[in-house]
Amino acid sequence: MKTKIILDVDPGHDDAVAILVAAKHEKLDLRGITVVAGNQVLEKTLQNALKVCSFAGIDVPVYAGQDRPLLRDQVIADDIHGDSGLDGPQFPPPTKRAEEKSAVDFIIEECLQHDREIVLVPTGPLTNIALALLKEPRIKQGIKEIVLMGGAYGLGNVTPSAEFNIFVDPEAAHIVFESGLPITMVGLDLTHQAKAYPEVVERIRRLGTPVAELVVELFAFFGDTYKRVFGFEAPPLHDVCAVAHVIDPTLIKTQKVPVVVETTRGACYGRTVCDFYFKTGKPANVHVAMELDQKRFWDLVIDTLSKY
Amino acid sequence: MKTKIILDVDPGHDDAVAILVAAKHEKLDLRGITVVAGNQVLEKTLQNALKVCSFAGIDVPVYAGQDRPLLRDQVIADDIHGDSGLDGPQFPPPTKRAEEKSAVDFIIEECLQHDREIVLVPTGPLTNIALALLKEPRIKQGIKEIVLMGGAYGLGNVTPSAEFNIFVDPEAAHIVFESGLPITMVGLDLTHQAKAYPEVVERIRRLGTPVAELVVELFAFFGDTYKRVFGFEAPPLHDVCAVAHVIDPTLIKTQKVPVVVETTRGACYGRTVCDFYFKTGKPANVHVAMELDQKRFWDLVIDTLSKY
Amino acid sequence: MKTKIILDVDPGHDDAVAILVAAKHEKLDLRGITVVAGNQVLEKTLQNALKVCSFAGIDVPVYAGQDRPLLRDQVIADDIHGDSGLDGPQFPPPTKRAEEKSAVDFIIEECLQHDREIVLVPTGPLTNIALALLKEPRIKQGIKEIVLMGGAYGLGNVTPSAEFNIFVDPEAAHIVFESGLPITMVGLDLTHQAKAYPEVVERIRRLGTPVAELVVELFAFFGDTYKRVFGFEAPPLHDVCAVAHVIDPTLIKTQKVPVVVETTRGACYGRTVCDFYFKTGKPANVHVAMELDQKRFWDLVIDTLSKY
Amino acid sequence: MKTKIILDVDPGHDDAVAILVAAKHEKLDLRGITVVAGNQVLEKTLQNALKVCSFAGIDVPVYAGQDRPLLRDQVIADDIHGDSGLDGPQFPPPTKRAEEKSAVDFIIEECLQHDREIVLVPTGPLTNIALALLKEPRIKQGIKEIVLMGGAYGLGNVTPSAEFNIFVDPEAAHIVFESGLPITMVGLDLTHQAKAYPEVVERIRRLGTPVAELVVELFAFFGDTYKRVFGFEAPPLHDVCAVAHVIDPTLIKTQKVPVVVETTRGACYGRTVCDFYFKTGKPANVHVAMELDQKRFWDLVIDTLSKY
Repeated sequence: MKTKIILDVDPGHDDAVAILVAAKHEKLDLRGITVVAGNQVLEKTLQNALKVCSFAGIDVPVYAGQDRPLLRDQVIADDIHGDSGLDGPQFPPPTKRAEEKSAVDFIIEECLQHDREIVLVPTGPLTNIALALLKEPRIKQGIKEIVLMGGAYGLGNVTPSAEFNIFVDPEAAHIVFESGLPITMVGLDLTHQAKAYPEVVERIRRLGTPVAELVVELFAFFGDTYKRVFGFEAPPLHDVCAVAHVIDPTLIKTQKVPVVVETTRGACYGRTVCDFYFKTGKPANVHVAMELDQKRFWDLVIDTLSKY
Repeated sequence: MKTKIILDVDPGHDDAVAILVAAKHEKLDLRGITVVAGNQVLEKTLQNALKVCSFAGIDVPVYAGQDRPLLRDQVIADDIHGDSGLDGPQFPPPTKRAEEKSAVDFIIEECLQHDREIVLVPTGPLTNIALALLKEPRIKQGIKEIVLMGGAYGLGNVTPSAEFNIFVDPEAAHIVFESGLPITMVGLDLTHQAKAYPEVVERIRRLGTPVAELVVELFAFFGDTYKRVFGFEAPPLHDVCAVAHVIDPTLIKTQKVPVVVETTRGACYGRTVCDFYFKTGKPANVHVAMELDQKRFWDLVIDTLSKY
Repeated sequence: MKTKIILDVDPGHDDAVAILVAAKHEKLDLRGITVVAGNQVLEKTLQNALKVCSFAGIDVPVYAGQDRPLLRDQVIADDIHGDSGLDGPQFPPPTKRAEEKSAVDFIIEECLQHDREIVLVPTGPLTNIALALLKEPRIKQGIKEIVLMGGAYGLGNVTPSAEFNIFVDPEAAHIVFESGLPITMVGLDLTHQAKAYPEVVERIRRLGTPVAELVVELFAFFGDTYKRVFGFEAPPLHDVCAVAHVIDPTLIKTQKVPVVVETTRGACYGRTVCDFYFKTGKPANVHVAMELDQKRFWDLVIDTLSKY
Repeated sequence: MKTKIILDVDPGHDDAVAILVAAKHEKLDLRGITVVAGNQVLEKTLQNALKVCSFAGIDVPVYAGQDRPLLRDQVIADDIHGDSGLDGPQFPPPTKRAEEKSAVDFIIEECLQHDREIVLVPTGPLTNIALALLKEPRIKQGIKEIVLMGGAYGLGNVTPSAEFNIFVDPEAAHIVFESGLPITMVGLDLTHQAKAYPEVVERIRRLGTPVAELVVELFAFFGDTYKRVFGFEAPPLHDVCAVAHVIDPTLIKTQKVPVVVETTRGACYGRTVCDFYFKTGKPANVHVAMELDQKRFWDLVIDTLSKY
């Protein structure tokens, strides 16, 4: 039986590939794509989601979500993803339109109709998810687990302490992490193991399809910014790791420990504090992603892309 | 020419070994030992310093310092160092007495008499050092550098975010880190590379001296607590790493980056936030210890101990 | 033309009287009563709202709202309002039932259907209002103003710094105060001018109706707790002041100044910081209630109650 | 017997008058004047203290103290006291020189030589006092009480929450307020009752002495800034109130309540949180000044000034 997922994104280069993989893999039943402000403002991330779906012929409903964080001032990542949020490739105007219903309403309705079946896969700030939980706590009954891209127990990327998705809405992340739901945190510690080195890019290029060409162009732009900003030799495919973990949980080794989100506004605002030594006395609430089986990860990604 | 150092300690098992190494190495001119509350209350850490000096015949003046943090409530580490702060070995009553002068006054006077010559080596909370800087900012002229044991860019040990010495007095640490003085931070990331494995212990035991026997007994107690609390297979010799770095700077690779101490009282209170990607725009103010040459480190330590 | 209001309450003794006045005054069109957790847990405040409406024959829909604050741990005021949240009078079981629709959905739908016509009158924590604003920012178009009971520029009542309604959900209050909507803050500074002294109680008692008797009993319990906890000689009718201000804005003198809600978690968490000297450089966003015309206030209240 | 006091100042217009009163009143034995950065940088406040002493022939030793707050960034009040910190009157170059000894050392030595006899009267930021307490906690034995100008339970003057002296060094204030020593806080709530109205100024002018003339000129400048910044009709003589309280404790009614200093860095940083309803459960540690006998206050001030 397929796993029912809702993909909550803010495309974003790696989000775009996450959409492509989530929409095509046979083990997933992608119920809807919900969009949130994050890498860029909502107007742009929504357009980007629609462009990717239109380009690849993905027939999944797309819902517009929250256009700013719950409490804090808005932060975007135009230094990484460019002015459009998905700079690099040229897209034709999207033929697809967003649904009337809001992302939060869709999440609530979808979860209320199921019984521990829905896997939420947020790869952007957790604003939509947190607001759905605030508005209708009973949706917890419909959720099997949350597998999110975000956080880090090592270095952050937007500040020395914080990863971008959590930093953009730490209060939303706090609500999600304290929800009592099963949570897997696929953070930078893991996703920096998913760098798209030239041999990977070459394998994708050789697929020879328009979608493969799109992915290669996305990697080119994303790789340039990662080289410039972080000195990385290849771009890490953050968001795809979360999707891959839902498809095949054996790809990523995790460790279940207590994690809290720092919501105090100092130098560590937005940090995911992972208590590996169990010093805080809090219960272990999060499966923290530790180690990626890189070979099998890329095989899965490329194999899925080959189906376009 | 010997390097003039002031060793500021809160013994503490690893502090005890740091005293032994600092007092005996030919390259160091140990001007005084200043004591601070930390691993235990000042009354006990002071006695421990005097006991170690008396036992090993170390003829260096010892000064009592601050008995509590500048601002925050006192925290001690009796879970690690025991009720005496130096549990394990039996010491004869110390024959040595502390000087009349306070640690802060000694630091101030010693530094005012020199010109960029004094290396401060704090291996406990930074209360004494910070108070000396507050009381008499002109001492900066006499200080060559500060090489401290404390902090971490990875996991903390007293909380998931903070290392003990910094956590005990984050405001003092803030004052030191913002002082403009050259600072080397020898944190847990480095000191966890200095674990006293059985072969090291065996080498020391074979020295066959009373001091060697003392060190072996210290390791035995310290190793037990580290196994129990952290699951470590051998105890890390934190404080000795800072002393070793002063003796031979080639033992430790460092990286100079911006570091701030988190003084906001949330889940990350007391964290040393190390900005390896230079995202904060702050100037690089701290040489962060990254990698230890373990073989040469142990050779230096054991060679120095062999001179007792 | 009547003023359309939504009364958002957490009864609570003074909330109960606010319901009675809001439902009966000829100048108000009470569109709905939304209930929130506050003085007691939602289950109890909802029952209390239904009991009051049933007892007084108030035919207005009642909607259940949020059962806890957006982010912080729940706080209730059972020391003031008793175990039921409305201790004192004996009520018959309520005949009225709450609507199916949630308070937040009702607020959103009602506001979307009007054009700057709805006056929101929250007399409890601002959780419902904030969540409606988060979920659907377009409701601002339907709102004429928000007249809230909460805050203080002088002493708080739940802490030295904070008034109860704001303290229970400071983050919600922050969202409301920063919404850009016209806001009148009827705080403790004003409501402590609305003490129900014996002569007032006597005037109400002489109305001789069941509703008047109920109000007298509410005052008796509320007066006892205010005497015990605060040493007040008579109980202040906080929430009624906000309703009265909507009915007759000449009853209360206000001053428009910049106000921010302290969301930093220190000794002042939940304080409404009122900048009377304009030192912060922020724009004046709140009409702060300063002075009550006590005689005319009580005339209005008693006159309205006399219509039951 | 005279009361031994140390006056700790940051002149400042009202500090200048406080010096004049403290140095001349027969009931006081002014042991020394210690100076701190506050209304202006230390270099200027020190010069101002020396100028006032030189001008008025005050033969009391003056000690330079701390030139910046313990932890926070420096703040000065040049908008109120002008570029020199004592703008308005023209002073001849001071003939007096500061002592070699530092303010902190003087406070420590003076207090160690007495037994509960010294009254500390700080009218600036509490940096000197806090540092003396940190450096040598035994000075508490020599201190009878601390009567300080600072704080407010109502509105602040530098922010809506905080009074200037506390705001400039909240951590120092925290140390003083938590010291366990008897403390009287003469805050804005009291000192705004000590406005130098024209009739007061006229009484001083008629003294006809150079010192009286100086005071009148100080009031003129100070009155202008208070009118401009706060809209006050006359300037409040803050610091003199603290000195007057030491001379005659019947001039000011006080109330003993729990007070904490807000050191959390939000909108209320530096607020003196006064718990008049005893809601915090903390012990009453501060006598808060509530009400000034204005007539007798001005009589005392003017009578003392007449002795120059």
